Amino acid sequence: MFSQTSEYALRVIVYLAGCNGEPATNRIIAAGTLVPQGYLAKVLQTLSRAGMVKSQRGLHGGTVLARDPHTLTLFDVVQAVDPIRRIESCPLALLAHGKQLCPLHTRLDQAIGGIEKILRNSTIADLMESKSKHRPLALCEPPPKLPKRKARTTAR
Amino acid sequence: MFSQTSEYALRVIVYLAGCNGEPATNRIIAAGTLVPQGYLAKVLQTLSRAGMVKSQRGLHGGTVLARDPHTLTLFDVVQAVDPIRRIESCPLALLAHGKQLCPLHTRLDQAIGGIEKILRNSTIADLMESKSKHRPLALCEPPPKLPKRKARTTAR
Repeated sequence: MFSQTSEYALRVIVYLAGCNGEPATNRIIAAGTLVPQGYLAKVLQTLSRAGMVKSQRGLHGGTVLARDPHTLTLFDVVQAVDPIRRIESCPLALLAHGKQLCPLHTRLDQAIGGIEKILRNSTIADLMESKSKHRPLALCEPPPKLPKRKARTTAR
Repeated sequence: MFSQTSEYALRVIVYLAGCNGEPATNRIIAAGTLVPQGYLAKVLQTLSRAGMVKSQRGLHGGTVLARDPHTLTLFDVVQAVDPIRRIESCPLALLAHGKQLCPLHTRLDQAIGGIEKILRNSTIADLMESKSKHRPLALCEPPPKLPKRKARTTAR
């Protein structure tokens, strides 16, 4: 139901939210999210254009989350990379029909609207603060090898 | 959110439900649903394999709906051509995670489950009997040029 691009973008955002502002290199993000590096670069570029992440080059460079996880929703992320489109007018473009939907497309749009609502009501912070058995950080596992620099951040 | 194939299959099924058992040729179905003929042939083949339509060749041949619209749901049609897949285990295939989903995938699966529920609860007959301003038959418009044979059926 969700495209590969949406899935990857969500993983990346959740992963970065777990890094608490510490820049993560593409290699580290790829390892933590299992997103292929080539694909990751494209996803990061799109998320950067949407103002959701910021990347900096250089020795201590990397990518950080650029939005507050408490206001960034799953819907925002999906819309940035592969937007969910509601059915706003007849897909058959029948003139007699105008903006009114027939019963079939009304029902399909209700279904899409249901997805939209759940994603709009879920912030990245909700996921991070979830009481699931699994670590809310990143996806399912602790982020691999975010070593010394991560430790310094914690000590700040 | 729904693939082109699902959209086309739903149009075809709803269209055939409006034909009340009168066989419709591919040309007529294509005109009534605005599905390109080449694509239509593939969709009909899949729906036929799933037992939802029956086709007969010959002078008075054509395709008819093979299921009762009161028990055939939008979900059945979508699953026959381009199945909605729930997230049943971690998409990252993390062993430590097993069948338990992390908060991200739990939320995504809830969204997919919402769509599934709406489609499961909508039969083709529901659409045909809807009180929408638009004709419940077919999609938005009366079926074009289902001429003499249609008239005979009505007169039976």
